[in-house]
Amino acid sequence: MADIVLPIVLPFEPLTGESFGAFGEVVEKRGSQHYTINNGTCERYHDLATIDVADVEGKPIVSIFSADPVSGVFQVSEMERHPLGSQLFFPLEPCQFVVVAAPEDWRGGVEGLRCFITEPGQGVNYRKGVWHHPLLVLEQRSDFLVVDRGGPESNCDLVQLPSEPRVVVDIEDLADFLQT
Amino acid sequence: MADIVLPIVLPFEPLTGESFGAFGEVVEKRGSQHYTINNGTCERYHDLATIDVADVEGKPIVSIFSADPVSGVFQVSEMERHPLGSQLFFPLEPCQFVVVAAPEDWRGGVEGLRCFITEPGQGVNYRKGVWHHPLLVLEQRSDFLVVDRGGPESNCDLVQLPSEPRVVVDIEDLADFLQT
Repeated sequence: MADIVLPIVLPFEPLTGESFGAFGEVVEKRGSQHYTINNGTCERYHDLATIDVADVEGKPIVSIFSADPVSGVFQVSEMERHPLGSQLFFPLEPCQFVVVAAPEDWRGGVEGLRCFITEPGQGVNYRKGVWHHPLLVLEQRSDFLVVDRGGPESNCDLVQLPSEPRVVVDIEDLADFLQT
Repeated sequence: MADIVLPIVLPFEPLTGESFGAFGEVVEKRGSQHYTINNGTCERYHDLATIDVADVEGKPIVSIFSADPVSGVFQVSEMERHPLGSQLFFPLEPCQFVVVAAPEDWRGGVEGLRCFITEPGQGVNYRKGVWHHPLLVLEQRSDFLVVDRGGPESNCDLVQLPSEPRVVVDIEDLADFLQT
């Protein structure tokens, strides 16, 4: 009988400024500097992320990403990073999503991979060069506003994870975290 | 009997790239350049707005604005502009909101004022120096992601409109435009 190689299941962590600090910033109102503007009709939660996109004649661009949902036991097979700029994602409905990240010095193994579940009203801003999985959204196709870098030179590195042991995120196991 | 001065009611216009072109850009997926990324799991609607914030050592910043709703017959009493940078607003729920704008060379009168109603999934990016009213949201307090300029020097001019004739937006009259 062939050996069975069990998958490595990444544990979910709540997304907080502290838990995510090695990878970038949580973009949210909670705990942020804010003040009232427009004759008292509007609260401004001010300057929530470090937009770091100027390398090699870079400029900030705003896009919308529309991502397909994942479900079941999802295999993390590829990670990416943007060596020339930060990348901010904010959902355009107050949904929860899954964030898989690894630090700048990650080299493609299982060590260093982390998995977070957001709360409604949270976005993330990956620091320049931080490894991350593409968007992992739940239940339905979801749109995000994205602030990242436009400019010359290649700005996306990809790394394939080993096929064994598989690294997975168990979406079915999220029930304890979902605020529905 | 005293003369009654009737208010000037701004007519609503649908928000399109064409109707809003004098003031900035409509930020939306529809009609935008897009392509598939992340192994076919995500559609990128690319570079939807001109982020023009570099004047006088400016930098892009991302904030969340949380705005109170307006209702009834709303008086437009003040307009503002940011002479040093563009300002982008995108709602964090797919709601509709009202946009009042006037061109760069507006001088505070009724001439030149325009009033738009957005569709769900639309945001706006005011061009640098374009006059606009603060956020006018409907029904409930609403959050927006805002991309504008941080940096030295004052970047907000305000103009009061005359008290008579009043300039108003008739929120009750929006029924024909609302997609609820």
